Amino acid sequence: MKVLNKLAVALIFVSLSFFATDLLTAQQLPPPEAVEIDKLGFMTGFPPSGEKVINAQNKNKYPQLRWVLQHSRELGPTKNIRRGSGPVSPLPQARRDLDNFIFEDEKGEKITVLQWLKKTYTDAIVVLHKGRIVYERYFNEGAAYNPHMLFSITKSFTGLLAAQLIQEGRLSADDMVVKYIPELADSAWGDMKVHHVLDMTGAVQFREVYTDPTSEIFAYMYACNMIPPPPNYTGPRTIYDFLKTLKKGGEHGKGFVYRTVHSEVLGWIVSRVTGKHFTDLLSERIWQRLGMEEDAYVAIDPVGTPWQGSGMSATARDLARVGEMIRKNGYWNGQSIFHPAVVEDLRRGGDREKFKASGMDFRAGYSYHNQWWIVHNADGAFEASGVHGQMLHINPAAEMVVVKLSSHPVASAAFTHALTLRAFTALARAVRQ
Amino acid sequence: MKVLNKLAVALIFVSLSFFATDLLTAQQLPPPEAVEIDKLGFMTGFPPSGEKVINAQNKNKYPQLRWVLQHSRELGPTKNIRRGSGPVSPLPQARRDLDNFIFEDEKGEKITVLQWLKKTYTDAIVVLHKGRIVYERYFNEGAAYNPHMLFSITKSFTGLLAAQLIQEGRLSADDMVVKYIPELADSAWGDMKVHHVLDMTGAVQFREVYTDPTSEIFAYMYACNMIPPPPNYTGPRTIYDFLKTLKKGGEHGKGFVYRTVHSEVLGWIVSRVTGKHFTDLLSERIWQRLGMEEDAYVAIDPVGTPWQGSGMSATARDLARVGEMIRKNGYWNGQSIFHPAVVEDLRRGGDREKFKASGMDFRAGYSYHNQWWIVHNADGAFEASGVHGQMLHINPAAEMVVVKLSSHPVASAAFTHALTLRAFTALARAVRQ
Repeated sequence: MKVLNKLAVALIFVSLSFFATDLLTAQQLPPPEAVEIDKLGFMTGFPPSGEKVINAQNKNKYPQLRWVLQHSRELGPTKNIRRGSGPVSPLPQARRDLDNFIFEDEKGEKITVLQWLKKTYTDAIVVLHKGRIVYERYFNEGAAYNPHMLFSITKSFTGLLAAQLIQEGRLSADDMVVKYIPELADSAWGDMKVHHVLDMTGAVQFREVYTDPTSEIFAYMYACNMIPPPPNYTGPRTIYDFLKTLKKGGEHGKGFVYRTVHSEVLGWIVSRVTGKHFTDLLSERIWQRLGMEEDAYVAIDPVGTPWQGSGMSATARDLARVGEMIRKNGYWNGQSIFHPAVVEDLRRGGDREKFKASGMDFRAGYSYHNQWWIVHNADGAFEASGVHGQMLHINPAAEMVVVKLSSHPVASAAFTHALTLRAFTALARAVRQ
Repeated sequence: MKVLNKLAVALIFVSLSFFATDLLTAQQLPPPEAVEIDKLGFMTGFPPSGEKVINAQNKNKYPQLRWVLQHSRELGPTKNIRRGSGPVSPLPQARRDLDNFIFEDEKGEKITVLQWLKKTYTDAIVVLHKGRIVYERYFNEGAAYNPHMLFSITKSFTGLLAAQLIQEGRLSADDMVVKYIPELADSAWGDMKVHHVLDMTGAVQFREVYTDPTSEIFAYMYACNMIPPPPNYTGPRTIYDFLKTLKKGGEHGKGFVYRTVHSEVLGWIVSRVTGKHFTDLLSERIWQRLGMEEDAYVAIDPVGTPWQGSGMSATARDLARVGEMIRKNGYWNGQSIFHPAVVEDLRRGGDREKFKASGMDFRAGYSYHNQWWIVHNADGAFEASGVHGQMLHINPAAEMVVVKLSSHPVASAAFTHALTLRAFTALARAVRQ
């Protein structure tokens, strides 16, 4: 029964993708080696033709999605997150061959790190231990310099910025949302507080049922310009206009329910408070200060609003630098990037009782706070996470940061999370040896 | 009569814009200070609203175009031209205040450099003398780090790459185009040689009449995805498919007629020969080798083909580095970037008799060769040039490189070229002093 419950939850979350990836079960997954983009030749040739073409019509299908995750700027408008013209901060190397490091998977069967990476459609992995690269691997045309879609890891950047603004006294978690965004007065956020948004305990009616075109998720995707609306579509054409249409669906503060639209509202608040676009904030406060290797970018809606819940692309190494800065309590090379209290609050996490409302059994014991996932394990680990296998995992006790970017056919982490957690535990064991 | 002729030519070229900017005469030009984008507030606010919004419908209007030229990636798909992770090559400074340097304009009236820059809607100017920055100014939110649309300067990059491939023996100017692109057999290029493409002496029927929707320029813009096609449009949807539809219009090799579509064909040839995308060639052969400050990028059509005639965006400083490399015969910091013979051939220029066929009286005495404009003046100057006031001007005798990026309301250089040439001559006099 418990197994069946878990399967049901898993299947529900399979459908919780921003992208309308065809629903897949474990049995239907294509062999990873059969869907490597260099083999499929997507967008190669002058011009690419036939099945090699990726466009608005097939960009959310699989395996096309494998290519899209490394090329999202080639499919729509984006805004740059500039690294500045300063030197790259070197990541010291202490390489170890962890390919054949063995651990037990969720079924108790032995698996190597390399097998795990291949099995979960990995594009890039970077493991830092005490700030040094101990392991780094690329697959499926992944490359150290190539920005990869981060999906909901984007939310965690928004959460960091908001938490820092609270620390600076420019924003209060106890304020009403409408103090900052009066435009939301008649929406679900009309009587919501900022902390309900930060921790996703605000009650919003937002159905993500991909088989039902009246489901709010469709209007959201049209508003973002993620997918082209049908010809007769007359609904909202921008993210902010869409947010205004959403209604309250329950009581605020009762429980955590994962709703991307909260991140969109949080981003709106952050930009309203600072007067700056998300990309400028990320550039000024993070990208220009961490000696990043590459510019990052974010996808935008038709009026330049970032897809604050899912739109960022960045490289694995640069994301590892962010993780290392957070692991060091917000410091980078002795400079304060985020206030230590911001990181301390993050580590402490949110309300584990309220988290249970999410039904995310595969994240049993977790909490969600300021747009981050807190594991509440013995090592004090916490994570930023995105669909299709994006992960920034910080393990303070092991002094380890893991970035894993993937193009898994299944959107939801439910499908792979048990294995992923075991792998991270194994990596923590490996780096400690 | 001669004045009237010149006016007629000027008015014809006003309409020769990739963008269907409303036709303007000198009397109708808006005062530059009234159309500064910081004053107009385009795309500011969260969200921008009303007249501040720039979208597919108004992006080619003026003054919206002033914002677009510095933000083109925010309006559509682009591909990155990566600078690599190496250090920035410093541009030594030898600053001089040339704001008030006086010269005579085309009517014999005194004008200062600063007045000229403001009058011609300048966004950025960088003047190098012996490789050192002597003058650098930004207006209208232009910034050292912000890539600016280069329009037809893009063509000159394609020409450089093609000339280098000829030098390497991988391409021949005397070969038929169809040797490389058999798909063009039934088009205007079916019996054309590569040098006709390089020097734009191939005869192609290509009308750029913005008041006539049957004019080929419209199908070209739909194919590029520069402007959205009408709902009932059934024509070509990619640049290469569009090129196949163009017919021969006269005799090849007789005279120079400026046709952007030749640059598209040349780019196709370059990618077919190398097996590489334009952006990879620019990154590997130029951007990664010159210590550029910023990544550049190019706009692409729905299958990833670059707008080879107009799509690049780059910073003024990085473009100045390219100019300096060419001024030094293809060398940068002692390393050969392009073969000296490529630059020598460029300086020698093309056929000045054939150039007269263009009707470009405002460029009297010029020739066009390998997608560059050769001035044939006493200083041996040559140029890459784009609509709305984009210019990379190389003056070997004065050891000077000028980059001027602008957002002039009038597309054609005809409107400003006499003044621009006088200004460049004045700058050459100034740096020599």
